[in-house]
Amino acid sequence: MPTISNRGSRMPSSPIRKLAPLAVAAKSRGMKVYHLNIGQPDLPTPRKALEVLKHVDRTTLEYSPSEGFKSLREKLTGYYAKFGIKLSPEDIIVTTGGSEAVLFSFMACLNPGDQIIVPEPAYANYMAFAVSAGAVIKTITSRIENGFALPPVDEIEARITDRTKAILICNPNNPTGYLYTPEEMNAIRRIVAKHDLFLFSDEVYREFDFSDRPYISALQLRGLEDNVVLIDSVSKRYSECGIRIGAIVTRNAHLREIIMKFCQARLSPPLLGQIVAEASIEGTQDYSEEVYNEYLSRRDFFMAELNSIPGVFSPIPQGAFYTVAALPVEDAEDFCRWCLSDFVYKDEDTPAGFSGETVMMAPAAGFYSTPDLGRNQVRLAYVLCKEDLGRALKILRKALKEYK
Amino acid sequence: MPTISNRGSRMPSSPIRKLAPLAVAAKSRGMKVYHLNIGQPDLPTPRKALEVLKHVDRTTLEYSPSEGFKSLREKLTGYYAKFGIKLSPEDIIVTTGGSEAVLFSFMACLNPGDQIIVPEPAYANYMAFAVSAGAVIKTITSRIENGFALPPVDEIEARITDRTKAILICNPNNPTGYLYTPEEMNAIRRIVAKHDLFLFSDEVYREFDFSDRPYISALQLRGLEDNVVLIDSVSKRYSECGIRIGAIVTRNAHLREIIMKFCQARLSPPLLGQIVAEASIEGTQDYSEEVYNEYLSRRDFFMAELNSIPGVFSPIPQGAFYTVAALPVEDAEDFCRWCLSDFVYKDEDTPAGFSGETVMMAPAAGFYSTPDLGRNQVRLAYVLCKEDLGRALKILRKALKEYK
Repeated sequence: MPTISNRGSRMPSSPIRKLAPLAVAAKSRGMKVYHLNIGQPDLPTPRKALEVLKHVDRTTLEYSPSEGFKSLREKLTGYYAKFGIKLSPEDIIVTTGGSEAVLFSFMACLNPGDQIIVPEPAYANYMAFAVSAGAVIKTITSRIENGFALPPVDEIEARITDRTKAILICNPNNPTGYLYTPEEMNAIRRIVAKHDLFLFSDEVYREFDFSDRPYISALQLRGLEDNVVLIDSVSKRYSECGIRIGAIVTRNAHLREIIMKFCQARLSPPLLGQIVAEASIEGTQDYSEEVYNEYLSRRDFFMAELNSIPGVFSPIPQGAFYTVAALPVEDAEDFCRWCLSDFVYKDEDTPAGFSGETVMMAPAAGFYSTPDLGRNQVRLAYVLCKEDLGRALKILRKALKEYK
Repeated sequence: MPTISNRGSRMPSSPIRKLAPLAVAAKSRGMKVYHLNIGQPDLPTPRKALEVLKHVDRTTLEYSPSEGFKSLREKLTGYYAKFGIKLSPEDIIVTTGGSEAVLFSFMACLNPGDQIIVPEPAYANYMAFAVSAGAVIKTITSRIENGFALPPVDEIEARITDRTKAILICNPNNPTGYLYTPEEMNAIRRIVAKHDLFLFSDEVYREFDFSDRPYISALQLRGLEDNVVLIDSVSKRYSECGIRIGAIVTRNAHLREIIMKFCQARLSPPLLGQIVAEASIEGTQDYSEEVYNEYLSRRDFFMAELNSIPGVFSPIPQGAFYTVAALPVEDAEDFCRWCLSDFVYKDEDTPAGFSGETVMMAPAAGFYSTPDLGRNQVRLAYVLCKEDLGRALKILRKALKEYK
């Protein structure tokens, strides 16, 4: 058998999937499992976007342009304008989800061996895309006791070597829900400008900003027109993760030209997804407000309940729909496993037909590159209805009591 | 401005797109341009597949499994069984088009610097995916005077070095329409087995086999269970290039496990495309026969007309819907440019409202890696209705007369 690539064997496994077989086994034992582990929004896709599928009036589902439909890119400029970001459709390249946006940005900007500085804990797939591109992620640690704020500037600058080519931020942050402050964005701006780095800014959770400040996009940082590469996606904001439509936005025309070569090689982004995305953008203000209010009220409810569990601590996330919590356990992964394989919760409210209930959480260690960090932490997503969130936390409270 | 990656600057431009601006300019002068340059099928998508979109009964367009829906993979096993290829759904990984199937196969199998042997002329995007993976394509030349047959075994073996890791074939071939014979498939089998290589077999045109022999898939070659990686796509066979659904099929379980890590990083293939693909596979036997007969009759018509033009020669393609033709010109790229920028055809049949007519062809040099090869050749796709094909060749005949 021919040997596979080193790159293949270095590809990380997703920390979210690691415990999936245990969840499957629990369900096959008749358990009801509350999924706090995944970021698959439960809210409906805008009805208008679903409706448009019924009226696709094409006889051939042909290739679309490699850069995406102009009409979609025009609507996206209108969307960004609402956030005070002025763009022309030429600045936007439609991609197959935010995932492809990350991969192509890395491919176009980074040589094998080039380093990207990323605050940890971080979205685990950045690592996978870095491995794909042969690039190296160097993390700087943001700490739960500081609410996962950006580490001090000197700590970041200490990580810069002659192979450092980029900084990557996710804002609002997955997994922490942290939202960078104007001061932090300015600090990032200064470092990027000083060292002439690329700034990859993953802003797919932009919509879910629970602060009372206006949202600051990396595209609004002055003097970084050639440095900033925005990673975006419609997945989370319209609950349409399955359509696989994202975008790379940059004002750097030369970089766009290079990225387009990767886009042309893969021919085109999904046609049907673009039709749905386009219908999702306009005339869905009410939808966006409803979704926002729902997540905000879930956050308030979820965080109050979570932090009332003895020994549990989580900073209040200012964005996205995740939070990282420290649990009163030594090894959160072991605890998460135990919840799925040993623990059974049952009371008079356990739904009929279930042998018991439990919760599934994502151990946070998988979001850190530095060994031993986050060992007592979990990432929790509040993408369930409030009733289920309440139930899940009641179960978690009991599980922590029973565990050892 | 930070510098872009070397990989970015090495990415080839598509030979099909090179002359696109000239075509745009011709159209803006009121010219009607017959596109013989692109492989976008003009035939309709199966009505059943379009119909299913009207009945998508989901409130949330959520992520699908990273390996693709089981129901789709089950239907695909039924499809392959019709070609005598026995598979289980576990052997199949659904990808975002054949493009992603090529990229992930390269990523999982090849280290930077590893070499892939590919018969040229070859689909140009293989080069782009090799550059993405840091792999190196080494071509062996198939020649128009031999009808683009596989070069002799000793010529292939002479290309094998200690960095050779794979052979890639496209069968039926894009751009030549060549279909490998049982003897050639057996020769490939022996070389792959002897040197324990991967065999990437791009069979996206399987459906369009105009020979009277049964189709031989690489998956049917004995003793290569761990070596063969099939690249597939529903794009061409159901005229649904825009839905971006392809597949990697391999019986090598360890390789599948590694490929799945790349699949998990990009989360999922397009949800809506999978729904359309699934509806395309079953109960469309009549559709497939109609499409087959249409392409076959186009081929017969097109090739007879083409080879009747003085000085033009093209072997009769046995598959796909392309052919490579030698023209009586020194520099086919210059001729293709001239057709778009200088030549104007007009007669009493020129459709009203057009200032004239011309043809667009893909210069074949872009499909060769060896410099100077294919300079007098063009790739032609017969994905227009017969009336338009006839008109296009009438125009080509006249253009060749007038050119110099």
